[in-house]
Amino acid sequence: MQRNIINRIVELTGVEYPIFQGPMTWVSDSGLTAAASNAGCLGVLSTGNMPPEVFREEIHKTRDLTDKPFGVNLVLLSPGFEERLDIVFQEKPEIVSFGAGNPSKYIAPLKDMGMIVIPVVPSVALAVRAQRAGADALIAEGQEAGGHIGSTSTLPMIPQIVDSIDIPVVAAGGIADGRGIAACFALGAEGVQLGTRFIVAEECHAHDNYKEAVIGANDRATAVTGTSINAPVRALRNKLTRRFYELEFQGASLEEIETLAIGKLREAVMTGDTDTGSVMMGQCAGLIKKKQTVNEIVEELISEADDAFKRMGALSFNDGLMINSQKNLKKYA
Amino acid sequence: MQRNIINRIVELTGVEYPIFQGPMTWVSDSGLTAAASNAGCLGVLSTGNMPPEVFREEIHKTRDLTDKPFGVNLVLLSPGFEERLDIVFQEKPEIVSFGAGNPSKYIAPLKDMGMIVIPVVPSVALAVRAQRAGADALIAEGQEAGGHIGSTSTLPMIPQIVDSIDIPVVAAGGIADGRGIAACFALGAEGVQLGTRFIVAEECHAHDNYKEAVIGANDRATAVTGTSINAPVRALRNKLTRRFYELEFQGASLEEIETLAIGKLREAVMTGDTDTGSVMMGQCAGLIKKKQTVNEIVEELISEADDAFKRMGALSFNDGLMINSQKNLKKYA
Repeated sequence: MQRNIINRIVELTGVEYPIFQGPMTWVSDSGLTAAASNAGCLGVLSTGNMPPEVFREEIHKTRDLTDKPFGVNLVLLSPGFEERLDIVFQEKPEIVSFGAGNPSKYIAPLKDMGMIVIPVVPSVALAVRAQRAGADALIAEGQEAGGHIGSTSTLPMIPQIVDSIDIPVVAAGGIADGRGIAACFALGAEGVQLGTRFIVAEECHAHDNYKEAVIGANDRATAVTGTSINAPVRALRNKLTRRFYELEFQGASLEEIETLAIGKLREAVMTGDTDTGSVMMGQCAGLIKKKQTVNEIVEELISEADDAFKRMGALSFNDGLMINSQKNLKKYA
Repeated sequence: MQRNIINRIVELTGVEYPIFQGPMTWVSDSGLTAAASNAGCLGVLSTGNMPPEVFREEIHKTRDLTDKPFGVNLVLLSPGFEERLDIVFQEKPEIVSFGAGNPSKYIAPLKDMGMIVIPVVPSVALAVRAQRAGADALIAEGQEAGGHIGSTSTLPMIPQIVDSIDIPVVAAGGIADGRGIAACFALGAEGVQLGTRFIVAEECHAHDNYKEAVIGANDRATAVTGTSINAPVRALRNKLTRRFYELEFQGASLEEIETLAIGKLREAVMTGDTDTGSVMMGQCAGLIKKKQTVNEIVEELISEADDAFKRMGALSFNDGLMINSQKNLKKYA
């Protein structure tokens, strides 16, 4: 297999393209993960609150479906985390990523067993801490992403993190096409992670209503709830998010707000309830127009990114080269 | 004057570089505006709630300080807007931009008098409306910007707007260095607008405490208040923003919240009260490390952007070229 962009993320993970399929609870199972890895990206298995034995089975299924490297994502703050961590120690997937919390104390033990550890961080402070704890690379995720998010956006955050650490950075949050990929490389990232774009993949088992909600979404279709309890979540603006806002701006308790959330993501993904379920998606959903196979998605991303790289290479503020007009830009978009 | 990147924004505005200095109430007066225009960018005079005759004087002062084109920004929802609009009709600045609202009905009359109209928009819907109303170009501003903001971030928003209209797009929100400029061009923008970076310019009259607050800020230093009353504002996290949160999450009334805000930006900018004033700045403040002259800032932006363009031109997913390692990227940063 010929590798093209060869950087530290490609060398570290062994992927063909430094493009990660973002882990999405209930959404990115063995089928989607293996499809992404088979397409030359890094598939990442989501574990969410999976029962340990289901998680083990999903790792086995993924291995049956691909001989390429893939990752698993552990959510630090979710119930049953320790049991799922045990499964990781037993099954030894190539790459382990962490979300929602500070994974520092788990990094060394996992690396000692030969696994590559790539935590997801929403800030410079956590990036510095993760590097100090021995992380091999980082996924820096901006608040335009879907699901549980931080407060800083991708565009201003990536260069601040790149300037604060030495390990390679994978940019996540707000990326759905090749222009976004090229933009993140301009910011200093050596890889990108896309979640929402892969929801509409034919290999993704999410309910068709969920996929149609992504395709129907515009730039202002999402809302962030949970700010009042310091647990912001981005999802489609619907009856559920309006109910959250009512509670939050009436000073509702942590318990009232958390109770409302229980089971809502599962409803959206599995039973297709997009009115009262939690239809998590990023602000890039407005760029997603159709269902495609994972291979079609990846080929499109690659060729759009290469077009953007070409456009960029033709630009200069200082040597008189001409920039393409917007009309020509469109050709590449 | 030799122009380098020649695109529709350069041709439309007559600037040397398609870089706008963002209008900032109380901050971007005739001194900063003229300095930005003299450096080859588009200086934009902020009017905020300026008394009409002070506004007229500021236009005259700017004209005394530069023979280059500059813009004025009108805030649609601010008291006295109509009077300031009259001044614009009388003084005919080259470029007029609009913030906080829908300027559609003012566009044709201004263009009929030979002015170029470039509204600021936070969404695809307003972009489409502004183009339909005859806008010459648009400034698409993401929510990572300082001051009054929308809800969508720059990275996912720019390509969605570029795909929805034909007039050129200037990207704003989250940009403070040349990497951010290159990233926005990759997204399809033909220009960029930077506000926060120019606060620390020596030609900017803002209180030194305000400038030090920008230099001291990190990636998570800002907070967004006003969400509960649909008037989000981004500013430095301080006693004032904490007080806003208390009020908002206790279900305070529109009036209570608006009353708290009165005069707070002026306090921060003019008297340097950064504890209880509204110290508006963007999430890119963490990238800003020192005070510089406007010329130094612009030279740095240009050379950083050109370095990023070069890096991008060397990239390809499909023809085996090597990407620079992070260490080399740092050289360019």
